[in-house]
Amino acid sequence: MIEDKDSSGVVLFDDGDHRFIWLGADTRGKKGVVQTMQYLIVDKGRGVLLDPGGVHLFPRVVAAASRYISIDRIDTIFFSHQDPDVSSGIALWLGVTSAKIYISDLWIRFIPHFGIVDQARIVPIENAGKAIRLGSGAELLFVPTHYMHSPAAFSLFDARAGILFSGDVGGAVFPDGAETLYVDDFKAHLRHIEGFHKRLIASNSVARRWVENARRLAPAMIAPQHGAVYRADAVGAFLDWLSALRCGVDDLDALYRM
Amino acid sequence: MIEDKDSSGVVLFDDGDHRFIWLGADTRGKKGVVQTMQYLIVDKGRGVLLDPGGVHLFPRVVAAASRYISIDRIDTIFFSHQDPDVSSGIALWLGVTSAKIYISDLWIRFIPHFGIVDQARIVPIENAGKAIRLGSGAELLFVPTHYMHSPAAFSLFDARAGILFSGDVGGAVFPDGAETLYVDDFKAHLRHIEGFHKRLIASNSVARRWVENARRLAPAMIAPQHGAVYRADAVGAFLDWLSALRCGVDDLDALYRM
Repeated sequence: MIEDKDSSGVVLFDDGDHRFIWLGADTRGKKGVVQTMQYLIVDKGRGVLLDPGGVHLFPRVVAAASRYISIDRIDTIFFSHQDPDVSSGIALWLGVTSAKIYISDLWIRFIPHFGIVDQARIVPIENAGKAIRLGSGAELLFVPTHYMHSPAAFSLFDARAGILFSGDVGGAVFPDGAETLYVDDFKAHLRHIEGFHKRLIASNSVARRWVENARRLAPAMIAPQHGAVYRADAVGAFLDWLSALRCGVDDLDALYRM
Repeated sequence: MIEDKDSSGVVLFDDGDHRFIWLGADTRGKKGVVQTMQYLIVDKGRGVLLDPGGVHLFPRVVAAASRYISIDRIDTIFFSHQDPDVSSGIALWLGVTSAKIYISDLWIRFIPHFGIVDQARIVPIENAGKAIRLGSGAELLFVPTHYMHSPAAFSLFDARAGILFSGDVGGAVFPDGAETLYVDDFKAHLRHIEGFHKRLIASNSVARRWVENARRLAPAMIAPQHGAVYRADAVGAFLDWLSALRCGVDDLDALYRM
Protein backbone atom coordinates (compact mmCIF):
# COMPACT_ATOMS: atom_id res chain seq x y z
CA MET A 1 0.00 0.00 0.00
CA ILE A 2 1.05 3.55 -0.67
CA GLU A 3 0.36 5.53 2.48
CA ASP A 4 -1.97 8.53 2.28
CA LYS A 5 0.77 10.91 3.43
CA ASP A 6 2.81 9.89 0.35
CA SER A 7 0.05 10.18 -2.22
CA SER A 8 0.84 13.81 -2.99
CA GLY A 9 4.49 13.07 -3.76
CA VAL A 10 7.83 11.96 -2.29
CA VAL A 11 11.24 13.57 -2.74
CA LEU A 12 13.58 10.75 -3.85
CA PHE A 13 16.74 12.90 -3.90
CA ASP A 14 17.57 16.36 -2.57
CA ASP A 15 20.97 18.03 -2.20
CA GLY A 16 19.72 21.59 -1.89
CA ASP A 17 20.16 22.69 -5.52
CA HIS A 18 18.73 19.61 -7.16
CA ARG A 19 15.69 17.52 -6.32
CA PHE A 20 14.15 14.41 -7.95
CA ILE A 21 10.50 14.05 -6.97
CA TRP A 22 7.92 11.32 -7.49
CA LEU A 23 4.64 13.14 -8.06
CA GLY A 24 2.34 10.79 -6.20
CA ALA A 25 -0.43 8.41 -7.08
CA ASP A 26 -4.11 8.70 -7.65
CA THR A 27 -5.30 7.01 -4.46
CA ARG A 28 -8.90 7.11 -5.58
CA GLY A 29 -7.90 4.37 -8.02
CA LYS A 30 -9.08 4.01 -11.59
CA LYS A 31 -10.21 0.47 -12.18
CA GLY A 32 -8.98 -0.98 -15.45
CA VAL A 33 -6.59 1.87 -16.28
CA VAL A 34 -2.87 1.22 -16.15
CA GLN A 35 -1.23 3.14 -13.28
CA THR A 36 1.40 5.63 -14.31
CA MET A 37 4.15 7.39 -12.35
CA GLN A 38 5.19 10.96 -13.03
CA TYR A 39 8.42 12.59 -11.89
CA LEU A 40 9.61 16.17 -11.56
CA ILE A 41 13.22 17.30 -11.36
CA VAL A 42 13.72 20.74 -9.80
CA ASP A 43 17.18 22.16 -10.43
CA LYS A 44 18.10 25.68 -9.29
CA GLY A 45 14.41 26.57 -9.29
CA ARG A 46 13.65 25.36 -12.83
CA GLY A 47 11.60 22.24 -13.59
CA VAL A 48 11.90 19.15 -15.79
CA LEU A 49 8.87 16.84 -16.12
CA LEU A 50 9.29 13.18 -17.09
CA ASP A 51 6.43 11.43 -18.98
CA PRO A 52 3.69 13.69 -17.58
CA GLY A 53 0.98 11.42 -18.95
CA GLY A 54 -2.29 11.39 -20.77
CA VAL A 55 -5.12 13.90 -20.91
CA HIS A 56 -7.15 12.43 -18.06
CA LEU A 57 -4.18 12.70 -15.66
CA PHE A 58 -3.45 16.32 -16.49
CA PRO A 59 -5.44 17.94 -13.64
CA ARG A 60 -3.84 15.74 -10.98
CA VAL A 61 -0.27 16.06 -12.32
CA VAL A 62 -0.45 19.83 -12.77
CA ALA A 63 -1.70 20.18 -9.18
CA ALA A 64 0.97 17.79 -7.83
CA ALA A 65 3.80 19.60 -9.68
CA SER A 66 2.58 22.97 -8.41
CA ARG A 67 3.33 21.91 -4.81
CA TYR A 68 7.02 21.95 -5.74
CA ILE A 69 7.34 24.61 -8.44
CA SER A 70 5.37 27.29 -10.23
CA ILE A 71 4.15 25.61 -13.44
CA ASP A 72 5.56 28.39 -15.65
CA ARG A 73 9.06 27.49 -14.37
CA ILE A 74 8.88 24.08 -16.05
CA ASP A 75 11.29 24.48 -19.00
CA THR A 76 11.66 20.93 -20.18
CA ILE A 77 9.38 17.95 -20.72
CA PHE A 78 10.84 14.55 -21.57
CA PHE A 79 8.79 11.84 -23.30
CA SER A 80 10.30 8.35 -23.20
CA HIS A 81 8.11 7.28 -26.15
CA GLN A 82 4.85 7.84 -28.02
CA ASP A 83 2.24 5.82 -26.12
CA PRO A 84 -1.03 7.48 -25.08
CA ASP A 85 -0.37 7.05 -21.35
CA VAL A 86 2.93 8.90 -21.79
CA SER A 87 2.16 11.71 -24.15
CA SER A 88 -1.51 12.24 -25.02
CA GLY A 89 -1.57 15.31 -22.74
CA ILE A 90 1.08 17.06 -24.84
CA ALA A 91 -1.18 19.85 -26.17
CA LEU A 92 -2.31 20.69 -22.63
CA TRP A 93 1.27 20.84 -21.31
CA LEU A 94 2.35 23.05 -24.21
CA GLY A 95 -0.54 25.33 -23.26
CA VAL A 96 0.32 25.83 -19.57
CA THR A 97 4.12 25.98 -19.90
CA SER A 98 6.68 27.42 -22.34
CA ALA A 99 8.60 24.16 -22.08
CA LYS A 100 10.51 22.45 -24.86
CA ILE A 101 9.49 18.83 -25.44
CA TYR A 102 12.18 16.15 -25.93
CA ILE A 103 11.12 13.00 -27.80
CA SER A 104 12.71 10.63 -30.34
CA ASP A 105 12.74 12.02 -33.88
CA LEU A 106 10.80 8.99 -35.08
CA TRP A 107 7.69 10.25 -33.26
CA ILE A 108 7.85 13.91 -34.25
CA ARG A 109 5.53 13.33 -37.21
CA PHE A 110 3.07 11.34 -35.05
CA ILE A 111 2.71 13.76 -32.15
CA PRO A 112 0.41 16.18 -34.04
CA HIS A 113 -2.17 13.37 -34.08
CA PHE A 114 -2.79 14.17 -30.38
CA GLY A 115 -4.03 17.64 -31.32
CA ILE A 116 -2.62 21.01 -32.26
CA VAL A 117 1.08 21.09 -31.43
CA ASP A 118 3.63 23.85 -32.05
CA GLN A 119 6.38 21.87 -33.80
CA ALA A 120 8.97 24.59 -33.05
CA ARG A 121 8.86 23.55 -29.40
CA ILE A 122 9.61 19.87 -30.10
CA VAL A 123 13.29 18.83 -29.91
CA PRO A 124 14.28 15.48 -31.47
CA ILE A 125 16.45 13.70 -28.89
CA GLU A 126 18.75 12.44 -31.64
CA ASN A 127 19.69 16.07 -32.42
CA ALA A 128 20.07 17.18 -28.81
CA GLY A 129 23.52 15.77 -28.04
CA LYS A 130 24.15 13.26 -25.29
CA ALA A 131 22.43 15.07 -22.44
CA ILE A 132 20.32 17.97 -21.21
CA ARG A 133 22.45 20.33 -19.10
CA LEU A 134 20.64 22.03 -16.21
CA GLY A 135 21.32 25.31 -14.37
CA SER A 136 23.34 23.69 -11.59
CA GLY A 137 25.58 21.93 -14.11
CA ALA A 138 23.78 18.63 -13.51
CA GLU A 139 23.27 16.51 -16.61
CA LEU A 140 20.36 14.36 -17.74
CA LEU A 141 21.81 11.70 -20.01
CA PHE A 142 19.77 10.14 -22.84
CA VAL A 143 19.89 6.33 -22.66
CA PRO A 144 18.75 4.37 -25.76
CA THR A 145 15.79 2.10 -24.95
CA HIS A 146 14.62 1.22 -28.47
CA TYR A 147 12.42 -1.88 -28.91
CA MET A 148 11.67 -1.92 -25.15
CA HIS A 149 8.91 -1.74 -26.27
CA SER A 150 8.77 1.25 -28.60
CA PRO A 151 11.07 1.15 -31.67
CA ALA A 152 12.23 4.61 -30.63
CA ALA A 153 12.41 5.09 -26.87
CA PHE A 154 14.81 6.65 -24.39
CA SER A 155 15.48 6.42 -20.69
CA LEU A 156 16.97 9.41 -18.89
CA PHE A 157 19.76 9.20 -16.31
CA ASP A 158 19.97 11.95 -13.72
CA ALA A 159 23.67 11.64 -12.88
CA ARG A 160 23.53 14.01 -9.91
CA ALA A 161 20.61 12.20 -8.26
CA GLY A 162 21.87 8.78 -9.37
CA ILE A 163 18.36 7.97 -10.62
CA LEU A 164 17.65 6.27 -13.93
CA PHE A 165 14.18 7.12 -15.26
CA SER A 166 13.51 4.02 -17.35
CA GLY A 167 10.16 4.63 -19.07
CA ASP A 168 8.37 1.30 -19.53
CA VAL A 169 11.42 -0.73 -18.49
CA GLY A 170 10.97 -2.10 -14.98
CA GLY A 171 7.26 -1.29 -15.09
CA ALA A 172 4.90 -3.25 -12.87
CA VAL A 173 1.19 -3.88 -13.11
CA PHE A 174 -0.18 -4.18 -9.58
CA PRO A 175 -3.48 -5.69 -8.53
CA ASP A 176 -5.76 -2.95 -7.12
CA GLY A 177 -4.59 -1.87 -3.68
CA ALA A 178 -1.22 -3.67 -3.87
CA GLU A 179 0.76 -0.65 -5.12
CA THR A 180 4.00 0.18 -3.34
CA LEU A 181 6.32 3.14 -3.94
CA TYR A 182 9.56 1.17 -3.62
CA VAL A 183 10.66 -2.30 -4.62
CA ASP A 184 12.52 -3.64 -1.60
CA ASP A 185 11.97 -7.36 -2.10
CA PHE A 186 12.68 -8.13 -5.75
CA LYS A 187 11.56 -11.77 -5.53
CA ALA A 188 8.14 -10.73 -4.26
CA HIS A 189 7.92 -8.02 -6.94
CA LEU A 190 8.73 -10.38 -9.81
CA ARG A 191 5.15 -11.58 -10.26
CA HIS A 192 4.05 -8.00 -10.99
CA ILE A 193 6.63 -7.42 -13.77
CA GLU A 194 7.19 -10.75 -15.48
CA GLY A 195 4.27 -10.82 -17.93
CA PHE A 196 4.63 -7.14 -18.80
CA HIS A 197 8.32 -7.49 -19.71
CA LYS A 198 8.00 -10.79 -21.59
CA ARG A 199 5.40 -9.25 -23.87
CA LEU A 200 6.68 -5.69 -24.26
CA ILE A 201 10.42 -6.13 -24.75
CA ALA A 202 11.28 -7.16 -28.32
CA SER A 203 14.06 -9.67 -27.54
CA ASN A 204 16.61 -10.83 -25.01
CA SER A 205 19.38 -9.32 -27.17
CA VAL A 206 18.05 -5.81 -26.67
CA ALA A 207 17.30 -6.36 -22.97
CA ARG A 208 20.93 -7.43 -22.45
CA ARG A 209 22.23 -4.40 -24.33
CA TRP A 210 20.17 -1.99 -22.22
CA VAL A 211 21.34 -3.70 -19.01
CA GLU A 212 25.00 -3.31 -20.03
CA ASN A 213 24.48 0.44 -20.41
CA ALA A 214 22.51 0.68 -17.16
CA ARG A 215 25.20 -1.16 -15.20
CA ARG A 216 27.82 1.28 -16.45
CA LEU A 217 25.74 4.16 -15.05
CA ALA A 218 25.46 2.40 -11.66
CA PRO A 219 22.15 4.01 -10.66
CA ALA A 220 21.16 4.19 -7.00
CA MET A 221 17.52 3.92 -8.10
CA ILE A 222 15.62 2.89 -11.25
CA ALA A 223 12.37 4.82 -11.57
CA PRO A 224 9.92 3.42 -14.17
CA GLN A 225 6.80 5.01 -15.61
CA HIS A 226 4.56 2.26 -14.17
CA GLY A 227 4.76 0.38 -10.91
CA ALA A 228 7.40 1.04 -8.27
CA VAL A 229 10.91 2.48 -7.80
CA TYR A 230 13.83 0.01 -7.49
CA ARG A 231 16.39 0.91 -4.81
CA ALA A 232 19.30 -0.69 -2.95
CA ASP A 233 19.66 -4.43 -3.72
CA ALA A 234 16.54 -4.45 -5.91
CA VAL A 235 18.40 -2.44 -8.60
CA GLY A 236 21.01 -5.12 -9.25
CA ALA A 237 18.50 -7.94 -8.82
CA PHE A 238 16.26 -6.39 -11.46
CA LEU A 239 19.15 -5.88 -13.90
CA ASP A 240 20.33 -9.48 -13.45
CA TRP A 241 16.84 -10.80 -14.10
CA LEU A 242 16.24 -8.55 -17.14
CA SER A 243 19.55 -9.49 -18.71
CA ALA A 244 18.52 -13.16 -18.76
CA LEU A 245 14.88 -12.67 -19.81
CA ARG A 246 13.57 -14.55 -22.83
CA CYS A 247 10.95 -12.28 -24.37
CA GLY A 248 9.26 -10.83 -27.46
CA VAL A 249 10.38 -12.39 -30.74
CA ASP A 250 12.44 -15.01 -28.86
CA ASP A 251 9.27 -17.11 -28.84
CA LEU A 252 6.82 -16.25 -31.60
CA ASP A 253 4.99 -19.58 -31.75
CA ALA A 254 2.47 -18.79 -29.05
CA LEU A 255 1.63 -15.36 -30.47
CA TYR A 256 1.60 -16.08 -34.19
CA ARG A 257 -0.93 -18.90 -34.37
CA MET A 258 -3.74 -18.19 -36.81
CA MET B 1 0.16 12.28 -57.38
CA ILE B 2 -3.29 11.39 -56.12
CA GLU B 3 -5.78 12.94 -58.51
CA ASP B 4 -8.33 15.40 -57.15
CA LYS B 5 -11.22 13.22 -58.24
CA ASP B 6 -9.86 10.45 -55.95
CA SER B 7 -9.23 12.57 -52.90
CA SER B 8 -12.71 11.93 -51.50
CA GLY B 9 -12.32 8.16 -51.70
CA VAL B 10 -11.99 5.17 -54.02
CA VAL B 11 -13.92 1.88 -53.91
CA LEU B 12 -11.27 -0.87 -53.98
CA PHE B 13 -13.75 -3.77 -54.09
CA ASP B 14 -17.50 -3.99 -54.71
CA ASP B 15 -19.64 -7.07 -55.36
CA GLY B 16 -22.99 -5.50 -54.59
CA ASP B 17 -23.35 -6.65 -50.97
CA HIS B 18 -19.84 -5.87 -49.83
CA ARG B 19 -17.58 -2.90 -50.50
CA PHE B 20 -14.04 -2.05 -49.35
CA ILE B 21 -13.42 1.69 -49.63
CA TRP B 22 -10.31 3.85 -49.23
CA LEU B 23 -11.53 7.05 -47.61
CA GLY B 24 -9.33 9.50 -49.46
CA ALA B 25 -6.45 11.77 -48.61
CA ASP B 26 -6.12 15.25 -47.25
CA THR B 27 -4.97 16.95 -50.44
CA ARG B 28 -4.32 20.20 -48.62
CA GLY B 29 -1.32 18.46 -47.11
CA LYS B 30 -0.09 18.79 -43.55
CA LYS B 31 3.62 19.45 -43.56
CA GLY B 32 5.53 17.42 -41.01
CA VAL B 33 2.62 15.17 -40.08
CA VAL B 34 2.70 11.54 -41.13
CA GLN B 35 0.04 10.75 -43.74
CA THR B 36 -2.52 8.18 -42.75
CA MET B 37 -4.99 6.11 -44.76
CA GLN B 38 -8.44 5.21 -43.50
CA TYR B 39 -10.68 2.47 -44.86
CA LEU B 40 -14.39 1.69 -44.58
CA ILE B 41 -16.00 -1.68 -45.25
CA VAL B 42 -19.72 -1.53 -46.03
CA ASP B 43 -21.42 -4.92 -45.80
CA LYS B 44 -25.20 -5.25 -46.26
CA GLY B 45 -25.57 -1.60 -45.30
CA ARG B 46 -23.54 -1.77 -42.06
CA GLY B 47 -20.10 -0.20 -41.65
CA VAL B 48 -16.69 -1.24 -40.34
CA LEU B 49 -13.98 1.43 -39.95
CA LEU B 50 -10.28 0.50 -39.96
CA ASP B 51 -7.82 2.69 -38.00
CA PRO B 52 -9.94 5.87 -38.24
CA GLY B 53 -7.09 8.00 -36.94
CA GLY B 54 -6.26 10.76 -34.53
CA VAL B 55 -8.30 13.67 -33.22
CA HIS B 56 -7.19 16.18 -35.87
CA LEU B 57 -8.35 13.86 -38.70
CA PHE B 58 -11.77 13.25 -37.22
CA PRO B 59 -13.69 15.95 -39.14
CA ARG B 60 -12.31 14.82 -42.51
CA VAL B 61 -12.81 11.10 -41.88
CA VAL B 62 -16.34 11.46 -40.54
CA ALA B 63 -17.27 13.52 -43.63
CA ALA B 64 -15.60 11.05 -46.00
CA ALA B 65 -17.32 8.05 -44.40
CA SER B 66 -20.70 9.78 -44.59
CA ARG B 67 -20.53 9.77 -48.40
CA TYR B 68 -20.86 5.98 -48.25
CA ILE B 69 -22.92 5.28 -45.14
CA SER B 70 -24.88 7.00 -42.41
CA ILE B 71 -22.42 7.33 -39.50
CA ASP B 72 -24.83 5.69 -37.05
CA ARG B 73 -24.69 2.53 -39.18
CA ILE B 74 -21.01 2.02 -38.34
CA ASP B 75 -21.11 -0.95 -35.92
CA THR B 76 -17.47 -1.87 -35.72
CA ILE B 77 -14.16 -0.02 -35.43
CA PHE B 78 -10.87 -1.92 -35.69
CA PHE B 79 -7.62 -0.54 -34.26
CA SER B 80 -4.46 -2.26 -35.49
CA HIS B 81 -2.53 -0.91 -32.48
CA GLN B 82 -2.26 1.89 -29.91
CA ASP B 83 -0.34 4.69 -31.65
CA PRO B 84 -1.74 8.24 -31.58
CA ASP B 85 -2.18 8.41 -35.37
CA VAL B 86 -4.31 5.26 -35.19
CA SER B 87 -6.45 5.68 -32.13
CA SER B 88 -6.30 9.10 -30.43
CA GLY B 89 -9.75 9.93 -31.89
CA ILE B 90 -11.35 7.03 -30.02
CA ALA B 91 -13.47 9.13 -27.66
CA LEU B 92 -14.88 11.11 -30.60
CA TRP B 93 -15.79 7.94 -32.54
CA LEU B 94 -17.44 6.43 -29.48
CA GLY B 95 -19.47 9.64 -29.28
CA VAL B 96 -20.84 9.67 -32.85
CA THR B 97 -21.42 5.93 -33.27
CA SER B 98 -22.64 3.02 -31.14
CA ALA B 99 -19.79 0.94 -32.53
CA LYS B 100 -17.81 -1.70 -30.68
CA ILE B 101 -14.05 -1.14 -30.76
CA TYR B 102 -11.71 -4.08 -31.45
CA ILE B 103 -8.12 -3.73 -30.20
CA SER B 104 -5.51 -6.06 -28.67
CA ASP B 105 -6.12 -6.78 -24.99
CA LEU B 106 -2.67 -5.42 -24.15
CA TRP B 107 -3.87 -1.87 -24.95
CA ILE B 108 -7.25 -1.96 -23.20
CA ARG B 109 -5.78 -0.43 -20.04
CA PHE B 110 -3.97 2.28 -22.05
CA ILE B 111 -6.87 3.49 -24.18
CA PRO B 112 -8.53 5.51 -21.36
CA HIS B 113 -5.45 7.76 -21.45
CA PHE B 114 -6.90 9.29 -24.64
CA GLY B 115 -9.90 10.56 -22.69
CA ILE B 116 -13.15 9.24 -21.29
CA VAL B 117 -13.89 5.86 -22.82
CA ASP B 118 -16.77 3.46 -22.11
CA GLN B 119 -14.86 0.23 -21.47
CA ALA B 120 -17.98 -1.86 -22.07
CA ARG B 121 -17.72 -1.04 -25.77
CA ILE B 122 -14.10 -2.23 -26.11
CA VAL B 123 -13.62 -5.83 -27.27
CA PRO B 124 -10.17 -7.44 -26.78
CA ILE B 125 -9.29 -9.09 -30.10
CA GLU B 126 -7.78 -12.07 -28.25
CA ASN B 127 -11.26 -12.87 -26.83
CA ALA B 128 -13.14 -12.31 -30.09
CA GLY B 129 -12.38 -15.60 -31.85
CA LYS B 130 -10.60 -15.79 -35.16
CA ALA B 131 -12.74 -13.32 -37.12
CA ILE B 132 -15.53 -10.76 -37.16
CA ARG B 133 -18.53 -12.17 -39.06
CA LEU B 134 -20.54 -9.59 -41.03
CA GLY B 135 -24.20 -9.57 -42.15
CA SER B 136 -23.47 -11.03 -45.58
CA GLY B 137 -21.54 -13.92 -44.06
CA ALA B 138 -18.23 -12.31 -45.04
CA GLU B 139 -15.45 -12.69 -42.49
CA LEU B 140 -12.75 -10.29 -41.33
CA LEU B 141 -9.89 -12.44 -40.08
CA PHE B 142 -7.51 -11.23 -37.33
CA VAL B 143 -3.88 -11.63 -38.42
CA PRO B 144 -1.18 -11.39 -35.70
CA THR B 145 1.23 -8.52 -36.39
CA HIS B 146 2.97 -8.25 -33.01
CA TYR B 147 6.37 -6.48 -32.86
CA MET B 148 5.72 -4.88 -36.28
CA HIS B 149 6.13 -2.45 -34.61
CA SER B 150 3.75 -2.60 -31.68
CA PRO B 151 4.18 -5.53 -29.26
CA ALA B 152 0.45 -6.14 -29.68
CA ALA B 153 -0.82 -5.43 -33.18
CA PHE B 154 -3.17 -7.06 -35.65
CA SER B 155 -3.79 -6.89 -39.37
CA LEU B 156 -7.28 -7.69 -40.69
CA PHE B 157 -7.98 -9.82 -43.76
CA ASP B 158 -11.22 -9.21 -45.61
CA ALA B 159 -11.57 -12.63 -47.24
CA ARG B 160 -14.48 -11.63 -49.49
CA ALA B 161 -12.67 -8.57 -50.88
CA GLY B 162 -9.30 -10.32 -50.88
CA ILE B 163 -7.79 -7.26 -49.18
CA LEU B 164 -5.35 -7.47 -46.27
CA PHE B 165 -5.44 -4.34 -44.11
CA SER B 166 -1.92 -4.41 -42.69
CA GLY B 167 -1.70 -1.50 -40.24
CA ASP B 168 1.87 -0.14 -40.21
CA VAL B 169 3.21 -3.03 -42.30
CA GLY B 170 3.85 -1.90 -45.86
CA GLY B 171 3.57 1.73 -44.81
CA ALA B 172 5.33 4.37 -46.89
CA VAL B 173 6.48 7.87 -46.04
CA PHE B 174 6.19 9.97 -49.19
CA PRO B 175 7.87 13.29 -49.87
CA ASP B 176 5.22 16.04 -50.13
CA GLY B 177 3.29 15.77 -53.38
CA ALA B 178 4.65 12.31 -54.30
CA GLU B 179 1.72 10.35 -52.83
CA THR B 180 0.13 7.67 -54.99
CA LEU B 181 -2.91 5.55 -54.20
CA TYR B 182 -1.51 2.30 -55.62
CA VAL B 183 1.93 0.72 -55.70
CA ASP B 184 2.36 -0.49 -59.26
CA ASP B 185 6.14 -0.37 -59.53
CA PHE B 186 7.56 -1.96 -56.39
CA LYS B 187 11.18 -1.13 -57.20
CA ALA B 188 10.36 2.57 -57.48
CA HIS B 189 8.31 2.38 -54.26
CA LEU B 190 11.10 0.77 -52.24
CA ARG B 191 12.82 4.05 -51.37
CA HIS B 192 9.64 5.23 -49.60
CA ILE B 193 9.33 2.15 -47.36
CA GLU B 194 12.85 0.94 -46.61
CA GLY B 195 13.80 3.23 -43.69
CA PHE B 196 10.37 2.98 -42.09
CA HIS B 197 10.42 -0.84 -42.06
CA LYS B 198 14.05 -1.23 -40.97
CA ARG B 199 13.37 0.87 -37.92
CA LEU B 200 9.83 -0.14 -36.98
CA ILE B 201 9.87 -3.92 -37.36
CA ALA B 202 11.50 -5.66 -34.42
CA SER B 203 13.42 -8.37 -36.29
CA ASN B 204 13.67 -10.38 -39.48
CA SER B 205 12.31 -13.42 -37.66
CA VAL B 206 8.96 -11.73 -37.04
CA ALA B 207 8.81 -10.22 -40.53
CA ARG B 208 9.29 -13.70 -42.01
CA ARG B 209 6.58 -15.14 -39.79
CA TRP B 210 4.06 -12.48 -40.83
CA VAL B 211 4.88 -13.02 -44.51
CA GLU B 212 4.24 -16.77 -44.19
CA ASN B 213 0.77 -16.05 -42.85
CA ALA B 214 0.11 -13.38 -45.48
CA ARG B 215 1.12 -15.70 -48.33
CA ARG B 216 -1.32 -18.34 -47.10
CA LEU B 217 -4.12 -15.76 -47.34
CA ALA B 218 -3.08 -14.85 -50.92
CA PRO B 219 -4.44 -11.28 -50.82
CA ALA B 220 -5.25 -9.47 -54.07
CA MET B 221 -4.28 -6.21 -52.33
CA ILE B 222 -2.37 -5.17 -49.20
CA ALA B 223 -3.74 -1.93 -47.77
CA PRO B 224 -1.53 -0.26 -45.14
CA GLN B 225 -2.36 2.59 -42.76
CA HIS B 226 0.31 4.86 -44.31
CA GLY B 227 1.42 5.22 -47.89
CA ALA B 228 -0.12 3.33 -50.79
CA VAL B 229 -2.07 0.15 -51.61
CA TYR B 230 -0.13 -2.82 -53.06
CA ARG B 231 -1.89 -4.61 -55.94
CA ALA B 232 -1.09 -7.14 -58.68
CA ASP B 233 2.63 -7.97 -58.87
CA ALA B 234 3.52 -5.44 -56.17
CA VAL B 235 1.89 -7.69 -53.53
CA GLY B 236 4.29 -10.58 -54.07
CA ALA B 237 7.27 -8.29 -54.61
CA PHE B 238 6.60 -6.59 -51.27
CA LEU B 239 6.22 -9.91 -49.43
CA ASP B 240 9.47 -11.24 -50.93
CA TRP B 241 11.33 -8.10 -49.91
CA LEU B 242 9.88 -8.03 -46.39
CA SER B 243 10.68 -11.67 -45.77
CA ALA B 244 14.38 -11.00 -46.35
CA LEU B 245 14.59 -7.65 -44.49
CA ARG B 246 17.23 -7.23 -41.79
CA CYS B 247 15.68 -4.85 -39.27
CA GLY B 248 15.14 -3.80 -35.65
CA VAL B 249 17.19 -5.76 -33.12
CA ASP B 250 19.07 -7.53 -35.93
CA ASP B 251 21.53 -4.64 -35.79
CA LEU B 252 21.59 -2.84 -32.45
CA ASP B 253 25.07 -1.36 -32.68
CA ALA B 254 24.08 1.78 -34.55
CA LEU B 255 21.17 2.54 -32.23
CA TYR B 256 22.64 1.64 -28.86
CA ARG B 257 25.72 3.83 -28.78
CA MET B 258 25.90 6.03 -25.70
